[in-house]
Amino acid sequence: MAMRKIYLDNSATTRVDDEVVGEMLPFFTEQFGNASSTHQWGQQAKQAIEEARNQVARLLNGTPNEITFVSGGTEADNLAIVGIAEAHGDKGRHIITSRIEHPAVLATCAHLEKEGWKVTYLPVYGEGIVRLDDLRKAMTDETVLITIMHSNNELGTLQPIREIGELVREQREAGRRHLYFHTDAVQSIGKVDVDVRELGVDLLSLTAHKFHGPKGIGVLYVRRGVRISPQTYGGHHERDRRAGTESVPLIAGIGKAAELARLHLAERSGHLRNLRDYLEQELFRIIPDITRNGDAERRLPSIANLNFDHVEGEGLQISLDLKGVAVSTGSACSSGSTEPSHVLVAIGLSQDTGHGSLRFSFGKDNTREDVDYVLETLPAIVGKLRSLSPRAVKKSKLEAGA
Amino acid sequence: MAMRKIYLDNSATTRVDDEVVGEMLPFFTEQFGNASSTHQWGQQAKQAIEEARNQVARLLNGTPNEITFVSGGTEADNLAIVGIAEAHGDKGRHIITSRIEHPAVLATCAHLEKEGWKVTYLPVYGEGIVRLDDLRKAMTDETVLITIMHSNNELGTLQPIREIGELVREQREAGRRHLYFHTDAVQSIGKVDVDVRELGVDLLSLTAHKFHGPKGIGVLYVRRGVRISPQTYGGHHERDRRAGTESVPLIAGIGKAAELARLHLAERSGHLRNLRDYLEQELFRIIPDITRNGDAERRLPSIANLNFDHVEGEGLQISLDLKGVAVSTGSACSSGSTEPSHVLVAIGLSQDTGHGSLRFSFGKDNTREDVDYVLETLPAIVGKLRSLSPRAVKKSKLEAGA
Repeated sequence: MAMRKIYLDNSATTRVDDEVVGEMLPFFTEQFGNASSTHQWGQQAKQAIEEARNQVARLLNGTPNEITFVSGGTEADNLAIVGIAEAHGDKGRHIITSRIEHPAVLATCAHLEKEGWKVTYLPVYGEGIVRLDDLRKAMTDETVLITIMHSNNELGTLQPIREIGELVREQREAGRRHLYFHTDAVQSIGKVDVDVRELGVDLLSLTAHKFHGPKGIGVLYVRRGVRISPQTYGGHHERDRRAGTESVPLIAGIGKAAELARLHLAERSGHLRNLRDYLEQELFRIIPDITRNGDAERRLPSIANLNFDHVEGEGLQISLDLKGVAVSTGSACSSGSTEPSHVLVAIGLSQDTGHGSLRFSFGKDNTREDVDYVLETLPAIVGKLRSLSPRAVKKSKLEAGA
Repeated sequence: MAMRKIYLDNSATTRVDDEVVGEMLPFFTEQFGNASSTHQWGQQAKQAIEEARNQVARLLNGTPNEITFVSGGTEADNLAIVGIAEAHGDKGRHIITSRIEHPAVLATCAHLEKEGWKVTYLPVYGEGIVRLDDLRKAMTDETVLITIMHSNNELGTLQPIREIGELVREQREAGRRHLYFHTDAVQSIGKVDVDVRELGVDLLSLTAHKFHGPKGIGVLYVRRGVRISPQTYGGHHERDRRAGTESVPLIAGIGKAAELARLHLAERSGHLRNLRDYLEQELFRIIPDITRNGDAERRLPSIANLNFDHVEGEGLQISLDLKGVAVSTGSACSSGSTEPSHVLVAIGLSQDTGHGSLRFSFGKDNTREDVDYVLETLPAIVGKLRSLSPRAVKKSKLEAGA
């Protein structure tokens, strides 16, 4: 059988849609103006940006002036967290987040801790989901920001964002006026409905390259009336929230990707779920000693995070790569290191078992044949690695009473 | 005569080179991996980034690990200035800059002033160039950063960067070890040689879209051994200097644009100078009461900044735009407002005269025919606007003894 190339790492990044590329192309070489210029080249650029802003607003059910274009999810998270902290730190210096946030949130919180902020990291238990009771208990009069991701990038688990939004609204009505709520929705866009009004969030991060748009462009949604401090200084771009010449092609690209994500949400979501469920069901059937990491129900349709006992995730990942299949052992952002993922540790996996975990993440371009190939390929890989594993051997001996 | 479209605003932004677009395209749809991923898609992406890093390093005569990719010139300037300030503020809290820096530098310095830093803004006199004597006098034991642009974006005037670099080296040898030197070279790349070793700079900013690369990608050069504090927190990208998923297509694009800028420097530079000199020479010949803003010799080959007495620059710019010609009345980054440019004020133009200034900025794609069209079009525009100008009328009356 000829080697195939099967990309099952769509939570790390996605292929840019051909329609999105088509939308971007004219802005490189034809309508290449600087949106700050007042002449016709500039006005064309400005118009393209405003059209994209409308497209993103529509995806989120926000308004265009609530959309700030930034360079990606990391910048969006940084701007949200430090932007709120700097603007409202006089009202209190406490942040509540979770143990399973993306490094862009965790590292930013850690930075603020060095500056004297107090940060509460909520637990997520075996299901990989924060609990409202824990959040309620963590809130104090000093709390100015709650930042909880919409869905986790490794497990796919959906967090109770709407419920937190309601809680925040109650707290505000009870007098805690300087409490803001941010969610990193980077993984959710294009997979489940994300409606800022329904969720009751004040700030929301997203990035184009996770939903078939280009890398290098993202959005921070900031609810009308919420004040944040800018984190870059320069011209008066993006309503003084983010200085720097706008990347018109990338903005046109994220606009188009947002439009396509909105129009095809139900269809894509169903497709992802079918593939993911097919993979899980078959793997559970044909390979023994597999467990699912995180909650089985409250999660994105696109991610299967599975633990293969007695083997190293790295070994599995490399073996699959050699067969042309891309998967991840955890968050792509922290890969390169062999440290166990903070997310798997947070759901209670020991460093040993956590090391046998693989994340399969589906995209709209995947097919049932892709899954079939994995189903043909993976059992032999697992079998071979288990036969070589000292842990597996040890376990067998123990079972044999040795 | 059919209306032509002539873009003479290449200091605001440039058309992306077709070769650069060709270099970027595969990274949107074929080699679309996340450079942090360890599988083959990720490794392809990583390799593309490292190739681009080499290309940029070669353009600047730096080494690859001195190149940090950021989202553009504004981010590069912010990272350089705040990055040095935060890392070395314990050694002193004084910055020296000039009155004609880009807003990305000036606004960042103003932000630091609010945090207790002292900033000296050097004058530039009629020629639009800082003087070494002023710089020498401004330096104190508290100075940790000198940030002076390589060339000014409105006038094109070249600043004495190499001489400042020597001065900094002398000061360091005399014991001022915590003195760093940053230059914003955004306007100079591709027009004049920029060699970090020869210049003796510690940090240098550039952005792709000013030299026929894409918008949304820039570089901060940081000399080996110079420590800066990162300004975004997240993954360990860019040697911990800049968190966030790398935009592989844009990085491949800036790499290619850097290579082309290096290979074609002499030829492009000569071409720009020919066009610019031709325009100036003819305009001076056929339109009365024009003056050049800034030094005639020590400047980029690409910019003509001319003042047309008795008219408003805005009126000229709009009239030219209606004829299909794009020029700028000042810095594109601050346009949209009708405030006179801080640069023109700094070279001593009154707010009135400064308002009659136009910046023509040439790019590699401009032709002699483009200049001919301006020469055919502009005299009538100037004549008409002057005939309507109250200032011109007033002056005529005064001259007539009225």
